[in-house]
Amino acid sequence: MAACIFCKIIKGDIPSFKLFESDRIFAFLDIQPLSLGHALVVPKHHGTKLTDIPDEALEEILPVVKKLVRATGAENYNILQNNGRLAHQEVDHVHFHMIPKPNETEGLGIGWPAQKTDMDKLKALFNEVKAKM
Amino acid sequence: MAACIFCKIIKGDIPSFKLFESDRIFAFLDIQPLSLGHALVVPKHHGTKLTDIPDEALEEILPVVKKLVRATGAENYNILQNNGRLAHQEVDHVHFHMIPKPNETEGLGIGWPAQKTDMDKLKALFNEVKAKM
Repeated sequence: MAACIFCKIIKGDIPSFKLFESDRIFAFLDIQPLSLGHALVVPKHHGTKLTDIPDEALEEILPVVKKLVRATGAENYNILQNNGRLAHQEVDHVHFHMIPKPNETEGLGIGWPAQKTDMDKLKALFNEVKAKM
Repeated sequence: MAACIFCKIIKGDIPSFKLFESDRIFAFLDIQPLSLGHALVVPKHHGTKLTDIPDEALEEILPVVKKLVRATGAENYNILQNNGRLAHQEVDHVHFHMIPKPNETEGLGIGWPAQKTDMDKLKALFNEVKAKM
C-alpha cells in the first residue's frame, strides 16, 4: 500500500526506532508515546483490521510483544489493538500497542462501562455466536 | 491455581458460555460485558501477566480472537489485555478481551494522553531497549 505510513516504515522509506524484524513482523517505538516505552508491533502484511491478517502472521505477534515487555522492563502495561474509527483506530494498518502504565496519568486511560448481567440476552447471543464458531 | 476463577471456568467447576476450547486455549462470553459480544480468550496455563505465558499458548490466541470477531460480526472492536492493577487488570490470569464498539457509549472507553515527540529521550530509550531485545 503506497500511501500507508506503516508500510513505508516497514519498507524503510520512513525511518523508525526499529526494535524487531522477522519475515512477517516489524516492531518499533511509537514517537508520540502515551508513556516511556510505548511500542508498536505490526504484521508486514497490509490489512486494516484483525480479520484481514493471515493466522501465520498473527501467531508471531504476541511472542514479540512479550519480548518488548521484557526489554522495556514494564511492570504494569496494556496490550491494545483498535479496529475501526469508533474504536479509536487512527492508522489503517493493524498494529498492537504495548503501553507501559507507570502511574495514573501516563499510559492508556481506560473507561469501563460494564453492563448488568442479563442471562437471557447472553444465552440468546451465545447460541447465535457459538453456531458461527 | 485452586483459587483462580478463570482456572475454575476452564476446569468446568464454574459454568461458562464456552465458545472455543483447544489443548491450550479457552474462550467464553464475559457475563458483565461492556457491549453485546464482549468475549474473553485465555490461555489454560495459569499466569498473571503476559510474560508468564509460554509462546506456544500465546501463538494460538490471536487466531482464536479472529474467529470470535467473525462469529460475533463485530465491525468496530478493541482487543485489550491488561497487566497489573494500575493497568486495570482485575483477574490475575491472563485474558484477552474482544470488545465490540457499536457506538460511543457502549464498549471500551479510551483515554489517549499522547506525549510530545522528544527525539533525544526516544533515542536514549531506543538504545537501552534495543540492547535487551
